[in-house]
Amino acid sequence: MQPRNASVAVIGAGDFIGAAICRRFAAEGFHVHGGRRQGEKLAPLAAEIEAAGGRFTAHTLDARSEEQVIAFLDAADAAAPLEVVIFNVGANVNFPLLETTERVFRKVWEMACYAGFLAGREGARRLLAHGRGSLFFTGATASVRGGKGYAAFASAKAGLRLAAQAMARELGPQNIHVAHLVIDAGVDTAFVRERFAARGGGEIPEGALMNPTSIADTYWMLHNQPRDAWTHELDLRPYGETW
Amino acid sequence: MQPRNASVAVIGAGDFIGAAICRRFAAEGFHVHGGRRQGEKLAPLAAEIEAAGGRFTAHTLDARSEEQVIAFLDAADAAAPLEVVIFNVGANVNFPLLETTERVFRKVWEMACYAGFLAGREGARRLLAHGRGSLFFTGATASVRGGKGYAAFASAKAGLRLAAQAMARELGPQNIHVAHLVIDAGVDTAFVRERFAARGGGEIPEGALMNPTSIADTYWMLHNQPRDAWTHELDLRPYGETW
Amino acid sequence: MQPRNASVAVIGAGDFIGAAICRRFAAEGFHVHGGRRQGEKLAPLAAEIEAAGGRFTAHTLDARSEEQVIAFLDAADAAAPLEVVIFNVGANVNFPLLETTERVFRKVWEMACYAGFLAGREGARRLLAHGRGSLFFTGATASVRGGKGYAAFASAKAGLRLAAQAMARELGPQNIHVAHLVIDAGVDTAFVRERFAARGGGEIPEGALMNPTSIADTYWMLHNQPRDAWTHELDLRPYGETW
Amino acid sequence: MQPRNASVAVIGAGDFIGAAICRRFAAEGFHVHGGRRQGEKLAPLAAEIEAAGGRFTAHTLDARSEEQVIAFLDAADAAAPLEVVIFNVGANVNFPLLETTERVFRKVWEMACYAGFLAGREGARRLLAHGRGSLFFTGATASVRGGKGYAAFASAKAGLRLAAQAMARELGPQNIHVAHLVIDAGVDTAFVRERFAARGGGEIPEGALMNPTSIADTYWMLHNQPRDAWTHELDLRPYGETW
Repeated sequence: MQPRNASVAVIGAGDFIGAAICRRFAAEGFHVHGGRRQGEKLAPLAAEIEAAGGRFTAHTLDARSEEQVIAFLDAADAAAPLEVVIFNVGANVNFPLLETTERVFRKVWEMACYAGFLAGREGARRLLAHGRGSLFFTGATASVRGGKGYAAFASAKAGLRLAAQAMARELGPQNIHVAHLVIDAGVDTAFVRERFAARGGGEIPEGALMNPTSIADTYWMLHNQPRDAWTHELDLRPYGETW
Repeated sequence: MQPRNASVAVIGAGDFIGAAICRRFAAEGFHVHGGRRQGEKLAPLAAEIEAAGGRFTAHTLDARSEEQVIAFLDAADAAAPLEVVIFNVGANVNFPLLETTERVFRKVWEMACYAGFLAGREGARRLLAHGRGSLFFTGATASVRGGKGYAAFASAKAGLRLAAQAMARELGPQNIHVAHLVIDAGVDTAFVRERFAARGGGEIPEGALMNPTSIADTYWMLHNQPRDAWTHELDLRPYGETW
Repeated sequence: MQPRNASVAVIGAGDFIGAAICRRFAAEGFHVHGGRRQGEKLAPLAAEIEAAGGRFTAHTLDARSEEQVIAFLDAADAAAPLEVVIFNVGANVNFPLLETTERVFRKVWEMACYAGFLAGREGARRLLAHGRGSLFFTGATASVRGGKGYAAFASAKAGLRLAAQAMARELGPQNIHVAHLVIDAGVDTAFVRERFAARGGGEIPEGALMNPTSIADTYWMLHNQPRDAWTHELDLRPYGETW
Repeated sequence: MQPRNASVAVIGAGDFIGAAICRRFAAEGFHVHGGRRQGEKLAPLAAEIEAAGGRFTAHTLDARSEEQVIAFLDAADAAAPLEVVIFNVGANVNFPLLETTERVFRKVWEMACYAGFLAGREGARRLLAHGRGSLFFTGATASVRGGKGYAAFASAKAGLRLAAQAMARELGPQNIHVAHLVIDAGVDTAFVRERFAARGGGEIPEGALMNPTSIADTYWMLHNQPRDAWTHELDLRPYGETW
């Protein structure tokens, strides 16, 4: 791997999609900065990336804190010029409307939408200083459809989606690529398989889940699009998904 | 006018659309409850409605306060059984992304989205107790499109829209009609005309603005739809609007 | 009923939605012109409307024939000035892709889309001559979603929908109200109940079907919207429909 | 270049996007079959591809003819197993509604929608026989928005889009990747630059056009997506486009 003098900041570097994104960009030579609530949980990922010859810095980060997001991005930008910011915080919950508390509605929004706005604004500020870069957001089916029980989650994801769209319109002509990815299926993780079984679903049907590495590859592809043909939004769905 | 033993609660009873909705339902015999930040500003509307033989109760209401929304809806429901809840709080702002402060983003969301969730959940709770009713939300172009400078406003309006959609899916089969109205143009008010002129726009073109009474009529129509044919979403646009 | 010096032309005056629209506008005093493939099948509807004091003229009409559509609209316009044109031809079919013949794909398009274009263009020509009027189109779930087996039907309905949208943008500022109605459920007819039972569905669940009269009422409402607040698109769905 | 025992069929192998797709897949070792109305116009492209060591077969093809589409795909499949079918026929026209003749409306549909259905159905038939493959469609802004003057074009493109969506739902679980690409800007060609100048537009603004090679790269990327994460739809837009 050829090291590049460039940083990627992954906000929401969770065990699955987030970790896969970190691995992918590290393998391309970027200095990767991963932020999550409990930064110490990133130690195995850091060890793995470093063993493979990559660079990874783990950060403890509450993505809902303006101050912490600024410090995180500043640290990333100081290590090497920031080139990519990816917002990947999830907050998937389902509650009957009457049981959706004020606290849940607000917290889901703070995690899935407000934190994305902070990542976008502060990411844009630094990318604009370099005159180029990518700003990507992980979306979900709920970004475009408000299903039963998803008042909180769909509201937050839709809010993130239109914030990203407004950013794209403003930042595109300034050479910043803003994209939003609608993941329209479950991701293949132990958690999803357990939850499926717990609902009495038995074994998950062939072709119904996605691999985190495929999502990470998509982000890498988006970052490499030439600027005369940028994608703002795409969906991802496993072949067996019946929509 | 024939008085009905039924209440309407209008959250965001502003000078234009909100006031027109209040007048319309009062004219149909409802006991109308209007809530806005400074309830004393509702005095002229109350006088007008009462002079016409209607019933109107003005409430000072911070729609972002769970406690106040509950008290407001309880008061409305106590005066006469609650039949309709309309959420009409606006928060239209436009800022360049880098100048959109944390405070603005949060406040716009609290007013345009979070308050709508509270209105919806608490409205639903009371309508479900009566076994029927309508729950309506005022949307905007920004509900479906994130234009340049609208990261905060479009994000909040999109969040309101998908919250309403999730509510519709859950509440429809329980006999609650949830609708969301996309207002795709300016409303004819002194404020809009002044702002247009201030931007050097001169006179507003013929056919480019909407009358608040037309929007109020639409809410009345929606409330009267038979339940075998409910509209969840419609757009409203003046004939001269070129989209 | 007060007769009006105005005509309505209903293209696709079938037994259910089309007939209900005819009854509704006849009851409002319009001279109603209904066209369908076999005009003689309209005799009972004509008798019913006339018995109620209304005016109805039955026409044999192949809506895919430019010549016949022109003759039909000319006849309607000659009887009384044309004020409303409603396109209501259906063509709901479902075939596996490989079994969708060239003939089926073309015929479904000719009925559901091309005929709608003819109705729209020739309707617009006559309404523009009068300086006002309404041009309405019946859509379906398939207008916005291409489900499995619906390559032909969804393609045709989507084509009708965007044709209507282009018409709205051009004709709105010329005082012609163009609307498209997305009917998102089955309509309560003997045919639908039989088909449901034939699929082993047993009895149709409460609240899952719509009444044609409700759809007709919606068209009447749309025609009465003031031009400062026209709806271009709305959905209709029975309360029990779970989307 | 490593030759592959695989064919690509490009229906609508025009001078710009179509030619770029042919070059791209030829460079990847595919046997490329390009079809267009006047096959002899493909001679320079064939020469270019062959000079670069690739394989290209030019076909004269009326994409609206079921018989010709079948013969074209059979020939491609006989040369080497068919792996990718790309439908790229354009038909962009703009006419005032009243000047949109029956002939124009029908012809635009036959070229942009009906031919795409034939390509999809017959492509699917052959790909299914091989148990895998990709079926891609070139869309446009008009696929999702019916602008003024676009009744014919938007109707046809929307019809193509929902046909593709229905195909995706049916063919995905059978291991066929169906994708639809929304090209939301002009493509950088002599024709577009001339038309822009002819309208008095002067020079086209920096960043407003796309290169055909970028679109071809996107098709290549889509074909290489792993089946656990297929994109059905994405947009492409140059950075300077203001939507």
